[in-house]
Amino acid sequence: MAISWQGIAKQKRESILAAIPAEWRIENIPSVEDKRDVTGAYIRSFLSESEVEITETDAVKIVEKTTSGQWKAVDVTRAFCHRASLAHQLLNCLHEIFFDAALESAHALDDYFHKYGKPIGPLHGLPVSLKDQLHIKDVETTMGYVGWIGTFEGKTGTGKEKVYESEMVKELRNLGAVMYCKTSVPHTLMSGETVNNIIGYTLNPKNRNLTAGGSSGGEGALIGIRGSPVGFGTDIGGSIRIPAAFNGLYGLRPSVGRLPYEGMGPLATTAGSLRLLVKAILSQQPWLHDPLVHEIPWRESHEQEIQSLIRSESSSSGKLCFGVMATDGIVKPSPPILRAIDIVVKALRSQGHEVIEWQPPFHGDIVEEAAKTWDFDGGADIKGAFSLSNEPMSQQVANFEKLDKQYSAAEIAAVNVRLRQLKKDYLEYWNSTAKLSRTGRCVDAVVCPVAPWPAARPQWFAYYGYSLWVNALDYTSVVVPVTEVDKKIDTVDAGYEPTDERDKSCYESYDPEIYDGAHVSVQIVGRRLQEEKMLGIAEYVGGLIGK
Amino acid sequence: MAISWQGIAKQKRESILAAIPAEWRIENIPSVEDKRDVTGAYIRSFLSESEVEITETDAVKIVEKTTSGQWKAVDVTRAFCHRASLAHQLLNCLHEIFFDAALESAHALDDYFHKYGKPIGPLHGLPVSLKDQLHIKDVETTMGYVGWIGTFEGKTGTGKEKVYESEMVKELRNLGAVMYCKTSVPHTLMSGETVNNIIGYTLNPKNRNLTAGGSSGGEGALIGIRGSPVGFGTDIGGSIRIPAAFNGLYGLRPSVGRLPYEGMGPLATTAGSLRLLVKAILSQQPWLHDPLVHEIPWRESHEQEIQSLIRSESSSSGKLCFGVMATDGIVKPSPPILRAIDIVVKALRSQGHEVIEWQPPFHGDIVEEAAKTWDFDGGADIKGAFSLSNEPMSQQVANFEKLDKQYSAAEIAAVNVRLRQLKKDYLEYWNSTAKLSRTGRCVDAVVCPVAPWPAARPQWFAYYGYSLWVNALDYTSVVVPVTEVDKKIDTVDAGYEPTDERDKSCYESYDPEIYDGAHVSVQIVGRRLQEEKMLGIAEYVGGLIGK
Repeated sequence: MAISWQGIAKQKRESILAAIPAEWRIENIPSVEDKRDVTGAYIRSFLSESEVEITETDAVKIVEKTTSGQWKAVDVTRAFCHRASLAHQLLNCLHEIFFDAALESAHALDDYFHKYGKPIGPLHGLPVSLKDQLHIKDVETTMGYVGWIGTFEGKTGTGKEKVYESEMVKELRNLGAVMYCKTSVPHTLMSGETVNNIIGYTLNPKNRNLTAGGSSGGEGALIGIRGSPVGFGTDIGGSIRIPAAFNGLYGLRPSVGRLPYEGMGPLATTAGSLRLLVKAILSQQPWLHDPLVHEIPWRESHEQEIQSLIRSESSSSGKLCFGVMATDGIVKPSPPILRAIDIVVKALRSQGHEVIEWQPPFHGDIVEEAAKTWDFDGGADIKGAFSLSNEPMSQQVANFEKLDKQYSAAEIAAVNVRLRQLKKDYLEYWNSTAKLSRTGRCVDAVVCPVAPWPAARPQWFAYYGYSLWVNALDYTSVVVPVTEVDKKIDTVDAGYEPTDERDKSCYESYDPEIYDGAHVSVQIVGRRLQEEKMLGIAEYVGGLIGK
Repeated sequence: MAISWQGIAKQKRESILAAIPAEWRIENIPSVEDKRDVTGAYIRSFLSESEVEITETDAVKIVEKTTSGQWKAVDVTRAFCHRASLAHQLLNCLHEIFFDAALESAHALDDYFHKYGKPIGPLHGLPVSLKDQLHIKDVETTMGYVGWIGTFEGKTGTGKEKVYESEMVKELRNLGAVMYCKTSVPHTLMSGETVNNIIGYTLNPKNRNLTAGGSSGGEGALIGIRGSPVGFGTDIGGSIRIPAAFNGLYGLRPSVGRLPYEGMGPLATTAGSLRLLVKAILSQQPWLHDPLVHEIPWRESHEQEIQSLIRSESSSSGKLCFGVMATDGIVKPSPPILRAIDIVVKALRSQGHEVIEWQPPFHGDIVEEAAKTWDFDGGADIKGAFSLSNEPMSQQVANFEKLDKQYSAAEIAAVNVRLRQLKKDYLEYWNSTAKLSRTGRCVDAVVCPVAPWPAARPQWFAYYGYSLWVNALDYTSVVVPVTEVDKKIDTVDAGYEPTDERDKSCYESYDPEIYDGAHVSVQIVGRRLQEEKMLGIAEYVGGLIGK
């Protein structure tokens, strides 16, 4: 008798747990009511002092130690494996665990250092987690589909199963990084919550009432609880930025073609870590291996330009100019988000930077057009993946079930023409801000929400407008953590009248009691291919507000 | 009674001719038999000495004179208007003539220079011709469709008719260029020959038995006869390179996203002119106005790298390394093309550069996949344009009539996935050449044909493989003129057995008597976004072979 999809999923789920060494098991997982926040003191209680020190060091400082021989790669790797094991038991954030291979790689790195007295590359001994979308030799890729278990992207007999390795993974290895786990995603990847029939639901470590976000939700949860210093996700509608924002992390959504593997970008605990990873990858000249990457090396001059504007003494011509968009006019963000925007605006103004109201072309048009691109194939690809095992779609992505019509080539062309026009209109609006700013330059970056909530409550993520406009325009964005929900300050605006169903859903989902303690973040958005500048600004803004 | 499409086309055709001043009319147009080659002495006989001097000066030297006040913009403009008028009467190469507006612009430039003692920009007073695909204020755009006459891209009441101006045109104006005519294209733009129901067939000035090429055929013919120093076309399958090659010109096919307006690039009489135009346009930061342009300024360091390799004394490590591909293994080029390749290879070797055999992944797979993209909409767009006036399709593009099925979104996605894989495979082949070259570096550029013939005979253009592979891979390519057909040397290879119908068609179409005197060119192909390097190499190769 064939095994049911439930049976296959259970087997896989248990095999993930079984890969966690017995000494790292948590005997009694506390309930959400007992332990809403499992970060900080709680998780530290399972770790040695040295493991705490290592795992609470950011990627920049880790490689300072590992590339100078102060820390051994194997010790760093083991510490993160331990903390990641705890994370998975508390949050359901891993799809693949391969600690033995990781420790073997780490040993090889230590041997190399011992033999040659120098690191193998700039990421020597740095553990890096990856979203379960990238392929790693000897490891499966399920992307949350039961039907992909034991296959290569749903197919068998391809010869690629557990052999093929993504270009990005090869480059990370060349740089000295150590891969040790792959993180959870929502099946379809098309959700701001991470849920699938294999591992279940990925929780937010800072507040387990809430989602860790999606689609790189496993990355968000794992790095949020410091089970990884840095990881890679993809972002075609907010999939890096949403988990980064929900977990108090920095996250970069690069423009398409800047890094290998369309839409790929890093999440980390500091902005400096993002820069480290981007610079390291660009140093590998990825355009020689990925045909869709543009030959744009890391531009020091762009970074310096931002630094000199920040340091400028002249407030009339030299400082930075920001656009601020607290609401997109469609869904009003909940109180803590508005407070976070306010914190950033005040901090910027206090340093003499200019902040002007961002009044762009209506985002609703942009978001509506971009959302069509998700439906081009009438859900054919997604339905095919579900039909492999006959597993059901989760509520979060059930809309795809209703699709039945594929767009024709002419319809697709029409959407693309319209998107191009919307991009052009936005570009010209951006250019026009030179007339509004006292610097005479255009706005350097836009400060705005990543989502209307600090983090969504399970099954309540229903509005992608705040993240998706950035993808539609192919802009560069960096998420910056700002504050935490404080139920005493962030009270419900009792008199607010929602304008429509989406607005109402956001309004009703916010409950200070449930949200208390959750991370609150904003994003810093720049034009296309402005990674150096946006990382510089994000680091500066984070520093200003003490994050 | 409504006017027939024939009537509308005739009216338009006559209005173009009517825009030519009476004193510039040629009374007796010689037949092809009487005057195969209308360049050189023949066309000069209609021009004053000063007009000959001006029109036979390349764009680089023209702007040297106009930006320093030695030549007046109005004199330069008038000279090219005159020569372009002759060109159109002999070759059918213009769709729009607006000499009055051009002379007015030129006067304004002269006034500016007089008043401020300096040029308005680096292209001050340079006449630039444009393919009839770009929009210019006060001028129509028909793209060869009778149904587009009196409309904006086939639509009426858009408010854009004769008002809208393409971004590229605005940038050229900012730089000081003078627009004076728009050049002919094949209706649909999807042909290597230029023919439509408005102006008829565009002939090759060097040998009027042959086509001027397409789709930027009007540009090719006009610049070929020196009725323009430089012009812009687009190239999605060879549309810049084919006319450049057929008319003894330099032509740049940039990678997508390097210049405004997808696929746009210059054709000119010298490689230096191409560089002038590209540098001038990039100086305008087109990425601030065209959302699909990447922020990649002109890179002097790339140019210098090529220059230092060229000048290097070390033949083992320092010189350039070329791949040479005389045939793609599908259609064997005719004798003069093979001779041109040989001339280039010998010239390079004589200077100590390395030339190795280019043995890439099979081009047939690449070309086949790329050709599908042309058929995605089942010809819907094209058929719609023809149905506006009920005009018939020319034989050259009649294949579109037979299409009836649109690709679905899933089918389009499959083609794109396959193309991406083919790009990746080619990239890795290119990387692998580092092992084959004695320099230890990868091949710098590939030398190969642009088409299997020096220029096609009317109705014989049926194989796009030599140009299309470059578009499929989004590579950078520059056409370099090499020699001319010599019926005494370039005899038919009588013993050759064609391998299939396409190969047979090429073989049979070559006739030394008909082809005698035609231009013969090659292309220099580089990886994606390598415009600086390929222009540097093309200029060097052209210099070596005396063109």
